Amino acid sequence: MADWLAALARRADLRAKAGLTRRLSPRTADDAVVDLAGNDYLGLSAHPEVVAAAAKALSEYGLGATGSRLVRGSTGAHHALEETLADWLGVDRSLVFSSGYLANLGAVRALVRPRTLLVSDAHNHASLIDGCRISGAETVVTPHADVDAVATALAAAPDRPAVVVTESVFSVDGDLAPLARLHATARVHGAVLLVDDAHALGVVGPTGAGAVAAAGLTGEPDVVVTATLSKALGGAGGVVAGPAEFVRHLVETARTFIYDTALPPAVAAGVHAAVGLARDGDGLRAELAARAALAVDRLRAAGLDVSAPDAAVVSVTAPGPEAATDWAAACRETGVAVGCFRPPSTPDSRSRLRLTIGAGPSRADFERALEVIVECAP
Amino acid sequence: MADWLAALARRADLRAKAGLTRRLSPRTADDAVVDLAGNDYLGLSAHPEVVAAAAKALSEYGLGATGSRLVRGSTGAHHALEETLADWLGVDRSLVFSSGYLANLGAVRALVRPRTLLVSDAHNHASLIDGCRISGAETVVTPHADVDAVATALAAAPDRPAVVVTESVFSVDGDLAPLARLHATARVHGAVLLVDDAHALGVVGPTGAGAVAAAGLTGEPDVVVTATLSKALGGAGGVVAGPAEFVRHLVETARTFIYDTALPPAVAAGVHAAVGLARDGDGLRAELAARAALAVDRLRAAGLDVSAPDAAVVSVTAPGPEAATDWAAACRETGVAVGCFRPPSTPDSRSRLRLTIGAGPSRADFERALEVIVECAP
Ligand SMILES: Cc1ncc(COP(=O)(O)O)c(C=O)c1O
Ligand SMILES: Cc1ncc(COP(=O)(O)O)c(C=O)c1O
Repeated sequence: MADWLAALARRADLRAKAGLTRRLSPRTADDAVVDLAGNDYLGLSAHPEVVAAAAKALSEYGLGATGSRLVRGSTGAHHALEETLADWLGVDRSLVFSSGYLANLGAVRALVRPRTLLVSDAHNHASLIDGCRISGAETVVTPHADVDAVATALAAAPDRPAVVVTESVFSVDGDLAPLARLHATARVHGAVLLVDDAHALGVVGPTGAGAVAAAGLTGEPDVVVTATLSKALGGAGGVVAGPAEFVRHLVETARTFIYDTALPPAVAAGVHAAVGLARDGDGLRAELAARAALAVDRLRAAGLDVSAPDAAVVSVTAPGPEAATDWAAACRETGVAVGCFRPPSTPDSRSRLRLTIGAGPSRADFERALEVIVECAP
Repeated sequence: MADWLAALARRADLRAKAGLTRRLSPRTADDAVVDLAGNDYLGLSAHPEVVAAAAKALSEYGLGATGSRLVRGSTGAHHALEETLADWLGVDRSLVFSSGYLANLGAVRALVRPRTLLVSDAHNHASLIDGCRISGAETVVTPHADVDAVATALAAAPDRPAVVVTESVFSVDGDLAPLARLHATARVHGAVLLVDDAHALGVVGPTGAGAVAAAGLTGEPDVVVTATLSKALGGAGGVVAGPAEFVRHLVETARTFIYDTALPPAVAAGVHAAVGLARDGDGLRAELAARAALAVDRLRAAGLDVSAPDAAVVSVTAPGPEAATDWAAACRETGVAVGCFRPPSTPDSRSRLRLTIGAGPSRADFERALEVIVECAP
């Protein structure tokens, strides 16, 4: 075996010994598992209207976008989606990227000018961290959800442009960032606030417009919102939403927008249909909130250490990485899919089950799934 | 207007004055343009078998993958595609990412160990450049297609791990990297060769298996191949193909794989069908080669400065950025879409039209399009 491959194999062995092996296991279309692991919060990925809209665009446009957005990749489906998203989010303009990951890389970098300071929450998603890194800007990582630390970091660079970078609902523990206070702090220092609303869009806020809307920050000229279209909206792709001048700047300069093939038109069309359903989805959101509360009650009653969810992500502490894997595997064998987060995917060194509450499964299946999680606990 | 937005607006004005404004213009499903701008080389994006395979998976799985590959995002469609791609490309294993951009970010970074030196061609795609940057490794940029410069860079770091990073068919000028010589040089120095085969997959090589296959490098243990599934394969997504140990390393450590929602299953299924058609597509490839030769003849006969295409990308020099924009716009008004590349999207400071030869348009339409390009020349 070539040297470099032997070195990789040795590292894989070390990971295996630490219980940190990751394996891909494909699901089938008819798998009957109760899903508390995926991010299809509102159950829209298989909603007949979403599927029909995607199928129509597929037959009209074909599969791929055939080019980047500025060359051949922009279709009516992309532009219609962008207008609807801008309207929903209450911003001047929105721009669709091929993924939330690339949207974050593009947004962070586009906010950086010479001497910009980035102030990034310690629990931020990999795509935000990579965005800070790729931007080349000096980055201060502040303790999780610590507004005072953000204020201190900004105050220490009074004459520099600055951007405060945060998720809204954090992806691992499901807690909500103190957005209103972060915004007030950013404003005092003339900084921009960048919020990744991935796990809140469709799930919280008036008409499901997300945590930025819920915090009363809609349309503020110093707020930029990013999100993925792959969670509550049931599709794929990402979006950056904000002031028109900023979106224009992205169109003309963002490498992850310009040098990337556009989202397939069928996906854009399907997501567009999902936005309509999400806006009208107060009933689904009420059901989600009820289920989240129920999950916390049941699991805490069984003596488990459970986070207080601000949206639809619930985190349950496991004794260690192997126990977490075994726990998740036992649930899986009993027909319940749960997320299993271990280092290095966790911001601290704790392993946990990560439950995503969805409106998709029936209430009976959902309650049975909670019992399974308790029964399989280590 | 907020300060930061005013600053962006000023920069947009400067770009406008330099003739470098970029604008999005959506196409409709029924636009009758002859497309010499998109990357649908084999015309597969709208092939009935591709559309039917995607539609079937859409109705079976719904629209989104609902999670990352390691959580809920892996379906039978992804795994079937990965097996077929590995077989086609003659490698141990392949891994599908949600885009070619993210595949490149992940692949470059995964090849970097402590002290690794990256040797990157000056014309490399933005995603490879960003991959080098995000990896944090020292990167030497060598002059375009200059094997001696690569050898010198490697020789200057004899005791360090190294990776030579190149496109195969370069996206702007359509020329082919000297892959066999690059590989021989890399091997002498114990370096890995990473080849982005985006514009060659499906277009060149035996059974269309790409430029790496054409260069006789199939399955070499020190070669890693990346590609997008959005060009000749007519879909979206990216792939990294290579030795099993490397792909396992990606699955377990690549941030752009682990923390990203999987490609929609319908897209994976559609691309899978496209691979079958591309493998059997010698007739389409012969037609492409004939059209590329014809384009060069006709355009040179008209006195234009035209690249010698190694695959299906033809570059035509324009006098400047504004002339390029006007030229492309005039073609567009006459029903012909051509690419228009201006700084900073060009590796030198030259502006050009970029023609992508596709098997999609009829031969008559294609020949008419060449006449339009000549008639509209500045
Ligand atoms: C908070 C957050 N941001 C960004 C992303 C990336 O979005 P995408 O999957 O569309 O690339 C994710 C997850 O996938 C996420 O959880
Ligand atoms: C050479 C090359 N590599 C990578 C990419 C990125 O692939 P994707 O569009 O799938 O992100 C492209 C173009 O889009 C490309 O031309």
